[in-house]
Amino acid sequence: MAVSNVYAVILAGGSGSRLWPLSRELHPKQLMKIEGDYTLFQSAFIRLVNCVDDKNILSITNVKLESQVKAQLKEMQEKFCRKSSYRVITEPECRNTAPAIALAIKYIEMLQQDKNIKEDPIIVAVPSDNLITDNEKYCKAVSAGIELAKENYIVTFGVRPDRPDTGLGYIRAKNNRKIKSIVPEGLKVESFVEKPDLETAEEFVESDKYFWNSGMFVFKASVMMAELKKYEMDIYNIMKFAEISSQTPTIPYQDFKDMPDISIDYAVMEHTKKLAMIPLDCEWRDVGSWEAIYEISEKDDNGNYIMGNVLDLDSEDSMVYSTSKLITTIGLKDTVVVETEDAVLVCDRHRSQDVKKIVNHLKERNDSTQYTHKTVYRPWGYYQVLNEGKGFLTKCIYVNPGAKLSVQLHHHRSEHWVVVEGKALVLKGEDYFELNCGDSIDLAVEEKHSLQNPYEEPLKILEVQQGDILDENDIVRFEDMYGRV
Amino acid sequence: MAVSNVYAVILAGGSGSRLWPLSRELHPKQLMKIEGDYTLFQSAFIRLVNCVDDKNILSITNVKLESQVKAQLKEMQEKFCRKSSYRVITEPECRNTAPAIALAIKYIEMLQQDKNIKEDPIIVAVPSDNLITDNEKYCKAVSAGIELAKENYIVTFGVRPDRPDTGLGYIRAKNNRKIKSIVPEGLKVESFVEKPDLETAEEFVESDKYFWNSGMFVFKASVMMAELKKYEMDIYNIMKFAEISSQTPTIPYQDFKDMPDISIDYAVMEHTKKLAMIPLDCEWRDVGSWEAIYEISEKDDNGNYIMGNVLDLDSEDSMVYSTSKLITTIGLKDTVVVETEDAVLVCDRHRSQDVKKIVNHLKERNDSTQYTHKTVYRPWGYYQVLNEGKGFLTKCIYVNPGAKLSVQLHHHRSEHWVVVEGKALVLKGEDYFELNCGDSIDLAVEEKHSLQNPYEEPLKILEVQQGDILDENDIVRFEDMYGRV
Repeated sequence: MAVSNVYAVILAGGSGSRLWPLSRELHPKQLMKIEGDYTLFQSAFIRLVNCVDDKNILSITNVKLESQVKAQLKEMQEKFCRKSSYRVITEPECRNTAPAIALAIKYIEMLQQDKNIKEDPIIVAVPSDNLITDNEKYCKAVSAGIELAKENYIVTFGVRPDRPDTGLGYIRAKNNRKIKSIVPEGLKVESFVEKPDLETAEEFVESDKYFWNSGMFVFKASVMMAELKKYEMDIYNIMKFAEISSQTPTIPYQDFKDMPDISIDYAVMEHTKKLAMIPLDCEWRDVGSWEAIYEISEKDDNGNYIMGNVLDLDSEDSMVYSTSKLITTIGLKDTVVVETEDAVLVCDRHRSQDVKKIVNHLKERNDSTQYTHKTVYRPWGYYQVLNEGKGFLTKCIYVNPGAKLSVQLHHHRSEHWVVVEGKALVLKGEDYFELNCGDSIDLAVEEKHSLQNPYEEPLKILEVQQGDILDENDIVRFEDMYGRV
Repeated sequence: MAVSNVYAVILAGGSGSRLWPLSRELHPKQLMKIEGDYTLFQSAFIRLVNCVDDKNILSITNVKLESQVKAQLKEMQEKFCRKSSYRVITEPECRNTAPAIALAIKYIEMLQQDKNIKEDPIIVAVPSDNLITDNEKYCKAVSAGIELAKENYIVTFGVRPDRPDTGLGYIRAKNNRKIKSIVPEGLKVESFVEKPDLETAEEFVESDKYFWNSGMFVFKASVMMAELKKYEMDIYNIMKFAEISSQTPTIPYQDFKDMPDISIDYAVMEHTKKLAMIPLDCEWRDVGSWEAIYEISEKDDNGNYIMGNVLDLDSEDSMVYSTSKLITTIGLKDTVVVETEDAVLVCDRHRSQDVKKIVNHLKERNDSTQYTHKTVYRPWGYYQVLNEGKGFLTKCIYVNPGAKLSVQLHHHRSEHWVVVEGKALVLKGEDYFELNCGDSIDLAVEEKHSLQNPYEEPLKILEVQQGDILDENDIVRFEDMYGRV
């Protein structure tokens, strides 16, 4: 199975704004467990392990998600691969799929160069937010796609629609003798069709010419670069001259900053003459909206999907999802309710595509609930803000075993720590203190300090910050095991 | 205006379950500000000050609400009365209006006895959860009611309906020569009508014979007791022999426990032949349901009433009420969303009467969200639970200036306090410590302690409890300025 010049790239930089408030810019849906034991991103990795040499599986994300993606990938490689050597390409900012794919191509070319391989790499680029249940059929389709890509086709994968979905793009395909001669199931793509209205979508389901655009592609690096040169010159030029090396899988901000925010569909697929399609003949779901989550979930006799601490009276065809507090519902119909620690969404189920608009509004008014949860993930663990008031702020801080926060000081705040679970090793000034559960310590303004968990149990502390300015940016770092100095 | 044998009783013991989750058994709607600067209970007091001698205004509530009712009353009496001498009658448990009215009568009789007044007291009994805007018309109606009560009528007050409300009881009235001769606007009550269906309610609005039952009554003490004897012998007998004195405005639990849970409407009004009615010719709203709150609130162009941190897209005729976190809504129609710190209600607006059912379900499953908020009121201030985990619990505790928590100890938990606002005086063992903002102190298991705020600024502390059992009942009290030892 393994072919050394075939690479796979998992696109894992999306912000998943249509699944807000559960999905956030800093913890988007692909990094969440939607179904089963693994996150959507991890499931995408597991699927690829069966079709591509695991050393050749990469992922690309943005700098904000980097540490989470690496942690999730590490877990998968330890479980499913002989050699653990994960490669994550990091974009300096959140962009769209066209810049991501171009950067991945360039980086893979650098890898090939290092190994002195002249052969043109073939790249399987996949989204990280689909639910696909049948790994065998998936692999079979990918293999067929690779065969077509070898013949210089850009290959998409289409799924036969089983319902008139207006939230997805469609592909119109037709038979083609030349393609059929390479792989019998292959088709020619006649056109890409944007998200249709309901009537049109119903026609598409009736016809056998239309497929859902799965967002998966296979192509030769040189072929895709040639098409980018033809149809999206800006990206091509920037990438051509960007300083990228196989040692540092990223692109300098100076090179990246002018990259247009465009999807690979708009940039290339809608224009290129080289498109072929392989039908993806298995259950496939785009987890793109709350409606989609509702569709894939198991419903009760009244058509409701209910999760968490919920008490319902007479609702129908609704979804009620609580992550923290009690939600009670009475007589709802076709409604989605999603609750998280800091926000609640109540939405007509058929309008769940418009959640994106809500997130854009929040961005405009600079509301932090659009990008971060009350829970904030860090390389060493995470923290939650419990309470904020005039002059003080309380956090619950979770430090993973073996992890250590940077050596730091603050100009404007003192900190008071109480250990509530596990044990802590605290640097205060020049001295180290071991704190057991129940112990507390004071850290003055301007006092150098660090929190460390060198033990085997997780550590949980409560932090009370006090000061005139309580801001995450009031931090001077001296040492950091995660390179944030 | 002031007549010494006329008393007013504000019934303030209701649990307001149909306004859950904003209203709770331990902080019900009558104690909340729904509109304007005062709570509903306080507004009821202000209205009565204009019609009745303020020394003769009492209120009756249950033991759980006593300290809040007293605090609200104190504030009003300091503002609106020359002499501050509030009288709150306390029931040992939550019951209905018939036992409350009977207890109030008995207590007022004891007061009269003390003063050696032989005259039969006249009592104005009013709910504490109505919105009434025109105090002048209200007073005029009450005065007319008093005149009729002097002639041994039991007087109700009826409001001309301006819409077919199915959530209210109605009164069918007719002209009566004898009553008219006493007060020209008086009418005879033909019958009480239970909450009607929509069609019937529409007929009532068309007809001029029907009035909303406002729940306000005026009667002579002796007349009401005679009617209770006739129609609700149990209450009469218990009250006759109960040990009640004017010194301690309450009734022993032993006497109270068998009191039937029945409203004064069911117990007396529906049977008595002595009913008269005075029309209450002003804007009057029963704040009995979220639909009612929606009705009285100012709506935007789309018919929405929106309060707090809310972002809406295209909703219509809905009410969205946030007290803490962000609520976003898309495309709702006739929906009520109410969010509090620990619960969310999402409800078809026309079914807001069914909130009561939800609260009953919660009671059945012993869910504390039916009776208390995350904010718990105490005689010395209040506290909020911030965070709970295995073996620890965090609270934010607010202590009023001059207040002091009981001297106490706990068998199962240690406590760690950090002052985040104001100053604290802490008893730890036998010693006192003055804690400034930022200071902390540890209180061990079994260590006697007390928290005190003898200063002029409010005090706010964070408390971290640690132990195997974290329960409010794990408390041994030694001294308490609120008599809770």
